[in-house]
Amino acid sequence: LFVAEGEDLVSAAQDAGFAPVELLVAGEDVEPALLAEVATLAHPPRVIGVFRRPEPSAEAVSASLSLWRISDPGNVGTLIRAADAFGAAVQLSEGCADPFGPKALRAGMGSTFRVPLRAFEILPGSVALVASGGVPLEDFELERYPHIVLGSERDGLPEDVAARCDVAATIPLRDGVDSLNVAMAGTIALYARRRKAGV
Amino acid sequence: LFVAEGEDLVSAAQDAGFAPVELLVAGEDVEPALLAEVATLAHPPRVIGVFRRPEPSAEAVSASLSLWRISDPGNVGTLIRAADAFGAAVQLSEGCADPFGPKALRAGMGSTFRVPLRAFEILPGSVALVASGGVPLEDFELERYPHIVLGSERDGLPEDVAARCDVAATIPLRDGVDSLNVAMAGTIALYARRRKAGV
Repeated sequence: LFVAEGEDLVSAAQDAGFAPVELLVAGEDVEPALLAEVATLAHPPRVIGVFRRPEPSAEAVSASLSLWRISDPGNVGTLIRAADAFGAAVQLSEGCADPFGPKALRAGMGSTFRVPLRAFEILPGSVALVASGGVPLEDFELERYPHIVLGSERDGLPEDVAARCDVAATIPLRDGVDSLNVAMAGTIALYARRRKAGV
Repeated sequence: LFVAEGEDLVSAAQDAGFAPVELLVAGEDVEPALLAEVATLAHPPRVIGVFRRPEPSAEAVSASLSLWRISDPGNVGTLIRAADAFGAAVQLSEGCADPFGPKALRAGMGSTFRVPLRAFEILPGSVALVASGGVPLEDFELERYPHIVLGSERDGLPEDVAARCDVAATIPLRDGVDSLNVAMAGTIALYARRRKAGV
């Protein structure tokens, strides 16, 4: 089960076809003070919904963002939102933050209910996004590599995972700058792929 | 004055030429328990530096990201980091989160000390980034509009501010998706401008 806090998330879940196991509305089903106590939000929500987690998506994916041990829930949610915006599924490895945890759900802004979520797997046509040493992102036929693989915040992608991808790409940055936040890097790669694919 | 918590931020400030007004090292200048008590971090830092805020930058800017009432400190810090990565100054309006507050500084990852920070102003060659109705981002000569103007998380850019820009641009998203997080949108625009400018 997972909990969606606040009207926006609850209605996004329902719009996506999730039926609540339990729906608690302040002043109707439950005392407002009790709802405020169990909520993780600074401003207590008017409604909390309890839903059943979906099964991992079994659909074939034509484009995806694969997350390797991305442990910050805000990053996981933001990347799911970006994948939704640019039309990609999301694959999560072990060690990733739970996409249905409260912080990740909030950052996902409802996209978590719409994006196909699957287990991590290197698919044919994968590009590893690395902080340095890869081909500059737009210098090759990105439309041939619809599966983007992103490493953890601190350590990036381990060599053996990157080696299983077809190519490695790097976002060119100003000299002297180390890296972008992983959520920024993934968003740029999703944008660049979609622009090149012309969809 | 502002406070930098942790060795990474303190050395980034010093590397950028900020001299500490006060430098507190746990176990040397101060009791570790006292440092932990004043710190805003979950894991108490070994060092805290107190520095003088810089004057707003008076240098001419060849590229910039202008933030209109972006109130979330994480977004302000992330956008400053992206501006650093792609070589742009940052202009902040009234109502923006303080870039030297603890959360914004952390999200800035040291970029806050390197990026020229200025007051908000619409410069010639400005493009307003809007959620809908603008020219698709890459369909015009972005290199002619080096100044990107971004509105607040909730309300975007007010019409009178957008009208003072030369053009309005929109990032094309999948049908049915409302918008990107403001930090994502700004990062994509900085990336796209730099790619087109070829610098």
